[in-house]
Amino acid sequence: MIGVGLIGGSLARALRAAGAVDEVVGCGRGRPNLEQAVELGVIDRFSHDIAEAVQDADVVFLSVPLGAMAGAFAALRDHLPAHALITDGGSAKGSVVHDCREQAPELLARYIPGHPIAGTEHNGVSASFAELYQDRRVILTPLSENAPESVALVRQMWEACGAEVTEMSVEHHDEVLAATSHLPHMLAFGLVDMLARLKENDEIFRYAAGGFRDFTRIASSNPVMWRDICIANREALGPMLNAFAGEMNLLAERIHRGDGEALLEIFERAKAARDRFTDGMK
Amino acid sequence: MIGVGLIGGSLARALRAAGAVDEVVGCGRGRPNLEQAVELGVIDRFSHDIAEAVQDADVVFLSVPLGAMAGAFAALRDHLPAHALITDGGSAKGSVVHDCREQAPELLARYIPGHPIAGTEHNGVSASFAELYQDRRVILTPLSENAPESVALVRQMWEACGAEVTEMSVEHHDEVLAATSHLPHMLAFGLVDMLARLKENDEIFRYAAGGFRDFTRIASSNPVMWRDICIANREALGPMLNAFAGEMNLLAERIHRGDGEALLEIFERAKAARDRFTDGMK
Repeated sequence: MIGVGLIGGSLARALRAAGAVDEVVGCGRGRPNLEQAVELGVIDRFSHDIAEAVQDADVVFLSVPLGAMAGAFAALRDHLPAHALITDGGSAKGSVVHDCREQAPELLARYIPGHPIAGTEHNGVSASFAELYQDRRVILTPLSENAPESVALVRQMWEACGAEVTEMSVEHHDEVLAATSHLPHMLAFGLVDMLARLKENDEIFRYAAGGFRDFTRIASSNPVMWRDICIANREALGPMLNAFAGEMNLLAERIHRGDGEALLEIFERAKAARDRFTDGMK
Repeated sequence: MIGVGLIGGSLARALRAAGAVDEVVGCGRGRPNLEQAVELGVIDRFSHDIAEAVQDADVVFLSVPLGAMAGAFAALRDHLPAHALITDGGSAKGSVVHDCREQAPELLARYIPGHPIAGTEHNGVSASFAELYQDRRVILTPLSENAPESVALVRQMWEACGAEVTEMSVEHHDEVLAATSHLPHMLAFGLVDMLARLKENDEIFRYAAGGFRDFTRIASSNPVMWRDICIANREALGPMLNAFAGEMNLLAERIHRGDGEALLEIFERAKAARDRFTDGMK
C-alpha cells in the first residue's frame, strides 16, 4: 500500500476482512499515520522507502496524490518483484498511465490502471473502513500491454471487497469522471470562492439554507488533491468547463429575455434526469 | 392563507401550535389539497375565491407562485378588510412589490414583503409541519409606505413560529438570495441538463457518486417555481450568472495552463469559507 489513507486503508481492511491477503505492507511519508495504521490493524508493518516496502509484494496499490504518481513509478522501476502487479486508485487515468510510460515503461505491462468510485469527506487511515467499496463501482482501464490474467487478478481483488467492477478506455474514464465528479467540484469550489470574495460575504453565507449546504459540501474537499486532479485531467476538464460557462451565459440570456418556456424546458429536463438518477441509486 | 402548500401550511400549523390564531381560512385552486388541509387541521375552512376567503382576515399570507402574485393582488384590491395586513413568502421581493404597486397601489402601505428561508424538497400541504420555521431565518423587506406597527405585527407572527426575523431592503434581499439560492439552483439545473443531453448520459449518471447526488439534489426542485423565480429576480440573477460563467472560463484557462498555484489558492479559499459556513450552522 503506497499511501495509507482512506482509500488504501479501506482497501487493506476490506481485503483482510475477505481473507484475501496474507501480509499488508504500508509505505508513506508520515510516521504517525503509518504507526496508527499498524495499531488499527490496517497494515502489518511499514517502510518509508518504496523499494523496501514492495520487495515481497504480489500486488502494489498506489494511492498517493496524482502529483506524486510519477515519483512512485520512478521508485518502483528497478525494485518491483518480477511477478508483481501494480494498480492504483487515482481519480484521473490518462496522467497516471503517462507517468508510468515516462518513468518506468518496462512496468507498463504490469500496471493495471483502476479507480474506485468511492470516498468520504474524511482523510487519513483513521477514516478508513472495510465496507467503503461494498456495492460501489470500480473502473479498470486496462492497457493493450496488460495480460488478461493480470486484469483478472485486479478485478478479483476489488470484487473481494464487494465492489462492482467495470472496464472502459482511459480516455473514456477521464471524460466520464470530468463530467460527474471533476466539473461539479469546480462549480462548488468556484461558487463558494466567488461568494467569499464578495465584500458582504459574511452576510451572504448567513442567509444560505440547507440547499446551499448540500450543494457546496464538495467544496470542503482537499484542495491539494483537487489541484492535482485538475491538472492531471486538464484535457477533459478544461473544455467541459468552457462548455458549462457557455451554457450559463445562454441561460442568463434566456433569463434576461424572460423566456419562461425555454427555462421551464431546461428545468424539467434536469429534474427528470435527476429523479431518474436518484431512482437508479435506490 | 392564499396558497396552502408546504410554506403556507407550515405557517398555519406553527401559528396554531403557538396559539397565535383563531381561525385559518385557506384559498387555492385545487379542491383535493384544500380538503386535505381541512382534514389535517391545517385550515378551518376554504374558498376558491380570494375575495370571499379574506373577508374576515386580519392577516393575509400570500404563498402562491411568483407568477401568480399579480393576480392575487388584483383580486385583493377591492376586497381586503380595512384593517388587514398582507405579507408573503415569495423567494424574490422586487417583483412582488412591483406586482402590488401595479395591481393594487392602495394596498402598498399594508403589504409587508417577507421571505422565510426554509423549505424542503417536498410540496403540498401533506408535507407541511409546524416546526419548519423553528430557528430558521425570515427576511422582511419593509417598504417606506409600511407603518412600523404593521412591520412589528408580521415580525411577531414569524417569531411566534420560532423564526429569527431580520430586515433588509428589497434590492439587497434579491441580491443575497440570487447569490445563495438562485445561482446555485441554476448551476445544479444547468449541470444536470448539460449531462442529460450528452449522448452517453445513462452511462455518465451510472458512475456518479454521492458527491454528485448532494450537489444536484436541488435540481429536483419544482421547475415551474424556478421558472418564476428566475424571471422575477432576473435583474440580480442574470448578471450573477454571467459573472460565474466568467469565473469558470478563467478557471478553465488556469487548468489549461496547469497553474497549480492559482488553483490551490482558489480551492483553499473556498474550503476555508465553506468550513466557516458549516461551523456557523452548528
